[in-house]
Amino acid sequence: MADTASVPLRVSIPQLEAFIERAFEAVGISKSEAGIIAELMVRADVQGSEGHGVFRLPQYIRRIKGGAVNVKPNIRLAREAAGMALVDGDNGMGHLVMRFATHKAIEKARESGIAWVGVRKSNHAGPASLYATMPLEHDMIGLYLAVGNANHLPPWGGIDMLLSTNPIAVAIPADDELPVVLDMATTVAAYGKVKTKAQRGEMMPEGWMVDREGKPLLDPKRASEGFLLPIGGYKGYGLALIIGLLAGTLNGAAMGKDVVDFNADDTTPTNTGHVIVAINVEAFQPIAQFKQSVDTLVRDLRNSRTLPGVERIHLPGEGSYAARADRLENGIPLSAPLLASLNQLAGELKIAVLG
Amino acid sequence: MADTASVPLRVSIPQLEAFIERAFEAVGISKSEAGIIAELMVRADVQGSEGHGVFRLPQYIRRIKGGAVNVKPNIRLAREAAGMALVDGDNGMGHLVMRFATHKAIEKARESGIAWVGVRKSNHAGPASLYATMPLEHDMIGLYLAVGNANHLPPWGGIDMLLSTNPIAVAIPADDELPVVLDMATTVAAYGKVKTKAQRGEMMPEGWMVDREGKPLLDPKRASEGFLLPIGGYKGYGLALIIGLLAGTLNGAAMGKDVVDFNADDTTPTNTGHVIVAINVEAFQPIAQFKQSVDTLVRDLRNSRTLPGVERIHLPGEGSYAARADRLENGIPLSAPLLASLNQLAGELKIAVLG
Repeated sequence: MADTASVPLRVSIPQLEAFIERAFEAVGISKSEAGIIAELMVRADVQGSEGHGVFRLPQYIRRIKGGAVNVKPNIRLAREAAGMALVDGDNGMGHLVMRFATHKAIEKARESGIAWVGVRKSNHAGPASLYATMPLEHDMIGLYLAVGNANHLPPWGGIDMLLSTNPIAVAIPADDELPVVLDMATTVAAYGKVKTKAQRGEMMPEGWMVDREGKPLLDPKRASEGFLLPIGGYKGYGLALIIGLLAGTLNGAAMGKDVVDFNADDTTPTNTGHVIVAINVEAFQPIAQFKQSVDTLVRDLRNSRTLPGVERIHLPGEGSYAARADRLENGIPLSAPLLASLNQLAGELKIAVLG
Repeated sequence: MADTASVPLRVSIPQLEAFIERAFEAVGISKSEAGIIAELMVRADVQGSEGHGVFRLPQYIRRIKGGAVNVKPNIRLAREAAGMALVDGDNGMGHLVMRFATHKAIEKARESGIAWVGVRKSNHAGPASLYATMPLEHDMIGLYLAVGNANHLPPWGGIDMLLSTNPIAVAIPADDELPVVLDMATTVAAYGKVKTKAQRGEMMPEGWMVDREGKPLLDPKRASEGFLLPIGGYKGYGLALIIGLLAGTLNGAAMGKDVVDFNADDTTPTNTGHVIVAINVEAFQPIAQFKQSVDTLVRDLRNSRTLPGVERIHLPGEGSYAARADRLENGIPLSAPLLASLNQLAGELKIAVLG
């Protein structure tokens, strides 16, 4: 970071939200729904999920213009029972669909103790933790699963890419401590990290990817000649498969060879599948007691003696909360190439540029 | 296996069940409940989960004699709502408690579409897949989580063992294909595998364990000087933590420093926590359609081209079904040391020996 030219510009949260809102309005989404999407996308940037926030805007707009996404969706319940619901997203923007599904899960969990809401005919919805954390303010646990929107993973021992990095996120409320928020892909590295390495001209560490001979692939510019490795070998393969069966197949959403690569295709609906589960802690025990138990556990883990050279123990989600504190204080950092691409988009859409 | 002395003896399923039943009756468990435990323990051996079947009998009996386990439990619902229940196992044998909880989950999921049943005050219950697979015959998906009964895992970067190998199992019904059954610990190797290596005088591969300096630990006889490694580094640490929060903390069961090492302690109740979730596929889509989709996916994965040297693609659970076919045909293999320990137990309990 010695090179001042690489220090990213900062934009304010309201500025960025207003820009995203203008962009979606320009392609036919209503002002109110454009505002909702903008708020959720910026929330991704605020929590430091840079690969899943405004960075995706040009791609989302391209796919809307290509006819791949429905700008006037009728998002509705396709099925419902006491402990579950199935949401049909009518091919709307994933953020709108997942917001609808998560609100439904929270509402149902108040009565039922827990609600599992499956989603089909949705689209890319940003980072997994965006939805897993929504139940927290209702003193509920959130659990999110999804089928990724591009296959980069073969079955263990295979070379045909039939699986995605299918993520899982779980958010658990605490008392004085930060909530515990796990948000992970089932591959050693998410594909976005490979792209970042390529952009920076850096090599990847061994263990991220292999080529079609099974040999380590270190040059991210050759990423298309190989595939990602799952965590724990066959275990991560099993996890990616199971998450895909629950979030995709069970909901009637795309899985396996039906997954559309939304990076390469601007015209085909993805039929993205997700699951959001809301667990009402009060159904199990008094919420105050639970939060205190989580605090105690978090402190015990943090106070563990460390390996040589390890400064401190981290809890899942701490990084996001640190990013959040920084962004709320200083605004959202945008790299020069990202800012250029957003202002190019502004020109194409004939809307006011950012800032 | 050239050494014929090491070829294990085979006993029939009814013989082994009757023996286990006699053992539990001898320490005060009713004949009917002893029969249920015996059937479930042998089912573990039938599916090839050798470390979780009759192998555990001497330890279970030792803990009952030590007063750590209640032989006359009043297993009951502590809380219930439409989508959930919380079972209090009254410190009974884990098999009885988890059978009760799983039956409750299946029954509730018929009405509610899905049921999440938490369990506290239970004990070690055998392999995770034993309960995850129970919903299959009701055309339901099963999902099981548990807190392990000994801590072998520190938080990532730490050296204090505050986490267990907390397993997850998920079973998904198929049509002509075998069900997809994932059953995995969140560590690279389960601790049982380390014990097996020690027994055989073999070294462990790098990546299973490290010592307190963070250096690879290869000699399984030095296992107590180090700890297991989680899959995917900090990701597996996060998974073990989240599973423990859901299966332990949320249910009011032991987690973190409260976990009792049931290998070393014969007198303290473990307050083991589990979760079983039953998902009624018919709530989401017609079961026939779902099973056909699973078959198609399984075949697509199996038909993937392979890496050099890989004979074929495996689906999670295939190994267990192959073991099952063998055991049903040929009986349960028992190693000479295991048979000796069982017949020593028979002497102590003054019951008829095996076979």
